[in-house]
Amino acid sequence: MLPGMPHFVDHDTRRLEVLDATWRVIARDGIDSASVRAIAREVGWSTGVLAHYFVNKDEILQAALQLAHRRVYERASRHAAESSGAGALFAALTESMPLDANRVLEAHVEVAFWGRALSSKRLNELQHDEFDIWDRFVRELVVATGKQNELASSVDIDALVAALLAVVDGAQLEAVLYPQRVSPQRQLAALETVIRTGLTPKAAAALRETLQGVAAGLRRRRSVRPPDGQVTRRSATS
Amino acid sequence: MLPGMPHFVDHDTRRLEVLDATWRVIARDGIDSASVRAIAREVGWSTGVLAHYFVNKDEILQAALQLAHRRVYERASRHAAESSGAGALFAALTESMPLDANRVLEAHVEVAFWGRALSSKRLNELQHDEFDIWDRFVRELVVATGKQNELASSVDIDALVAALLAVVDGAQLEAVLYPQRVSPQRQLAALETVIRTGLTPKAAAALRETLQGVAAGLRRRRSVRPPDGQVTRRSATS
Repeated sequence: MLPGMPHFVDHDTRRLEVLDATWRVIARDGIDSASVRAIAREVGWSTGVLAHYFVNKDEILQAALQLAHRRVYERASRHAAESSGAGALFAALTESMPLDANRVLEAHVEVAFWGRALSSKRLNELQHDEFDIWDRFVRELVVATGKQNELASSVDIDALVAALLAVVDGAQLEAVLYPQRVSPQRQLAALETVIRTGLTPKAAAALRETLQGVAAGLRRRRSVRPPDGQVTRRSATS
Repeated sequence: MLPGMPHFVDHDTRRLEVLDATWRVIARDGIDSASVRAIAREVGWSTGVLAHYFVNKDEILQAALQLAHRRVYERASRHAAESSGAGALFAALTESMPLDANRVLEAHVEVAFWGRALSSKRLNELQHDEFDIWDRFVRELVVATGKQNELASSVDIDALVAALLAVVDGAQLEAVLYPQRVSPQRQLAALETVIRTGLTPKAAAALRETLQGVAAGLRRRRSVRPPDGQVTRRSATS
């Protein structure tokens, strides 16, 4: 590259490197240990170079959380594009549940942020925005399920959306804190139980097949590709 | 009291004073600020006096969490004794949801512990034990609901218990982080949605009445008695 040539091309890639390093630090040492210095060390830069990409720790942490969410949405939206109805709803929600190493790492970042958002107004506001986006996304999938005539006529959409968000958040938390007990199978069974409430009998029977497909997919994936092939997986409770 | 007379009588009361002060500090300043010094200041003692009751910060925090849980069980067990079936199950689970100021404070303590348990092996093990106890308790209530012939014959008890625990944990988290969106009404609707999955149509209709009773009770309780009448309620997100 010629001296003085702008570095725009690298900028996003470099920021992603920082965010992936941030996840590794959070998963390994806890969110309180994710200082600018520790993140710089993890990515192999000086703190001075890091400052070209992020102003401070808060900005890094917020970007790391948003990246985790964007990746969930990308995968979830793919399900919504490839299938429809209750199957798409179920598959999209599983993208936010810690069912494999990649999603355990994302969930670990998420849970670490919850604790921190209790005492940080800015992180709390970010969580509110992200909650609203997720709530709308899930609601759209529920409404789309209705358009496929797969929702029971008695269903209360507000209540179903509230239950779906809560069961996914709760399973995420429990699986990160207690993976020995809250296995992928337990998480999937809990989610299916909630979705099934809102479905016609025919759609509920079809969902059972989707569930078996997801479970079989998890069993097949013996080695899991971490995000961007960079993140080394650590035990969520170590 | 005569000099040299043993202080056994006061011991438990004194410990409770410390734990209630700990909750106030956690709710107001965050769990990381709940140092032995800060807790001693809140309760109005020297750290030296505090040391007669608790060895260190970890012991205080663990006892504070266990006290929060014991209070949930006491209230939940009262529902199980006073009523039966799905109504008892529903009412017992609501005792663990942040539906009023008292339970918001308990939930705040709970959520603060989740974040901390990620990086503390001892707190994580305590969470595991508490999860197992809660899982057994909810399972017994579900089985008792079955004995009242209120469970649908198709119900998968493991999946229902998993969904119930997850929806309560998720609602607890969401309501603490975002009380403006996750209102008591939303929490109750989410819980009812999940319980109803497992019920006979007759039991589901009866549950609707229990729900309306709980909601009416919440509206009536304008001023809420804090635990032991000592804890001053603060906004969960302040």
